Amino acid sequence: MPKLPNKMTAIAIKSPGGPEMLVPEERPVPAPGPSELLVRVKAAGVNRPDVMQRKGQYPPPPGAPDIPGLEIAGEVIAVGGKVSRWRVGDKVCALVAGGGYAEYCLADEATALPVPKGFSFVEAAALPETFMTVWHNVFERGGLKAGETLLVHGGSSGIGTTAIMLAKAFGARVIVTAGSPEKGSACMKLGADLAVDYNKEDFVAATKQATGGRGADLILDMVGGDYVDRNYEAAAVDGRVVQIATQKGTKVTVDLRRLMLKRLTHTGSTLRARPVADKGAIARALEAKVWPLLTAGKIKPVIDSTFPLAKAADAHARMETSAHIGKIMLEVNG
Amino acid sequence: MPKLPNKMTAIAIKSPGGPEMLVPEERPVPAPGPSELLVRVKAAGVNRPDVMQRKGQYPPPPGAPDIPGLEIAGEVIAVGGKVSRWRVGDKVCALVAGGGYAEYCLADEATALPVPKGFSFVEAAALPETFMTVWHNVFERGGLKAGETLLVHGGSSGIGTTAIMLAKAFGARVIVTAGSPEKGSACMKLGADLAVDYNKEDFVAATKQATGGRGADLILDMVGGDYVDRNYEAAAVDGRVVQIATQKGTKVTVDLRRLMLKRLTHTGSTLRARPVADKGAIARALEAKVWPLLTAGKIKPVIDSTFPLAKAADAHARMETSAHIGKIMLEVNG
Repeated sequence: MPKLPNKMTAIAIKSPGGPEMLVPEERPVPAPGPSELLVRVKAAGVNRPDVMQRKGQYPPPPGAPDIPGLEIAGEVIAVGGKVSRWRVGDKVCALVAGGGYAEYCLADEATALPVPKGFSFVEAAALPETFMTVWHNVFERGGLKAGETLLVHGGSSGIGTTAIMLAKAFGARVIVTAGSPEKGSACMKLGADLAVDYNKEDFVAATKQATGGRGADLILDMVGGDYVDRNYEAAAVDGRVVQIATQKGTKVTVDLRRLMLKRLTHTGSTLRARPVADKGAIARALEAKVWPLLTAGKIKPVIDSTFPLAKAADAHARMETSAHIGKIMLEVNG
Repeated sequence: MPKLPNKMTAIAIKSPGGPEMLVPEERPVPAPGPSELLVRVKAAGVNRPDVMQRKGQYPPPPGAPDIPGLEIAGEVIAVGGKVSRWRVGDKVCALVAGGGYAEYCLADEATALPVPKGFSFVEAAALPETFMTVWHNVFERGGLKAGETLLVHGGSSGIGTTAIMLAKAFGARVIVTAGSPEKGSACMKLGADLAVDYNKEDFVAATKQATGGRGADLILDMVGGDYVDRNYEAAAVDGRVVQIATQKGTKVTVDLRRLMLKRLTHTGSTLRARPVADKGAIARALEAKVWPLLTAGKIKPVIDSTFPLAKAADAHARMETSAHIGKIMLEVNG
């Protein structure tokens, strides 16, 4: 095994606060455990939970690095003793427990996936968090089927753009909500059948109208707050509502009469808190069902913007404007 | 076909109000449609929705009779032209759209089931509403599996006692809540593993303690109100909460963080509003999976009390005391 570096640059959170709290620091290069890969990071994705972690609202789970960053792509430069699939030199992208904003990062071998053929590291690093989240919540948990109608809130976000592309690829109809005509038209270009500008239109009425009064079979929601009861209203009989975040509030009031009369199913999940075995199972399903679409060039993640690692603060500032369409990325070791 | 009677006695709701509003009236005997059976009613079950209907809070769905009563047992005395399975003289029990509190009642052939061998008509009439509700919500919708823990609120009700017996018969562990030591001990006699007196104990703490901190895999709830958020607390990771009524209120506040972090599924249903095809499918599943347990004498519905049809008001008064354990029944043509 070649000699590994001892030190690296990582982006630390100086103390809870604004984007300026993200500062480069020298840290020791972590050593892989038995089932882990040490990856020389070439790109990392920026996600909402990173912003919440920076603000001190989302502490990393026990055992996770304090450095933010939940997804990376790069080259394997060392492997633990029990790693069976990956070798030094492999190009991988991976969901990680934290620590992605750094020159080197550990990933469990179960949550790593090959960089799809023809993908840059930036494109590959845009995949793990959103594709695993969408796959699990829309298809595994939400059971979306061809011919059904999916309503996606935040259609122009990383999650939203991924949900549009995957749902269309698997034969569903897609309605999105988006906060501006530009965002709406970006969603339509990706294949959405209808974009509802939530500043101008009531998504419940728009969804009912677009479905001949039936409502949406599945709703992917990261908004929470008053959206939840409205989701119940916008859902079809036997509809499912899958909650993946609660940007407008976690304590919500709902009318159970609707839940019972329409036989709705309200469920949800977070990815980070799950055991590695669960994440690995999602990664393998994704590799089997979605990687072929990526390597065939049928789907590409939408990249909003790319910042150098040292400018992670600017990347967070961009995310907090909510002006972005698609993924915000960091380039590392460029 | 023998000559059918023209007139019958039925229990009408004079106007919305107390039990005394239930009065015997002469009504025409209904004529069966193509897929319907005309049943000479020998017994009918009394259910909570009947009480709500009497109070004017639960109007019968369009096309349903105004006479209350959702389940009956008796003898088939006429059949519609498209009825294939049943013949005049058959002894059946059936879920009906209404009209059960009467000497004659129509039932769709799909929602009829044979009176199980060795069952009285009163026992058979106690089956359709609660057994279909429990089968669908606990097994089909809630997916209860052997080895899992079911928490049932209102353990001593008709639904509750049925849920205890069926869950135990299929290998689950059962925790119930009940409002008195007598009710708790009745649940224990039916096989419940733990009865929590909700007037003295917090069911969340009791459920956690009884499951080594895990919580319940499935919760069958007819309470609603503040129970819903407490159900989320009492549920295990990957737990399901199935809502079948909301006696304490339909508008509830829940914490979505719990839903997401534990990956809970909150769903529910009502039986009456469903299409006949759905009800028929549940009836056939019940006949295949549960009827053998009934005919083998392994399970018998718990009958709290039986009143003559003319005393339906007394039956409602008893239900409203909530002192009953098991089903309250009406005997007809006795």
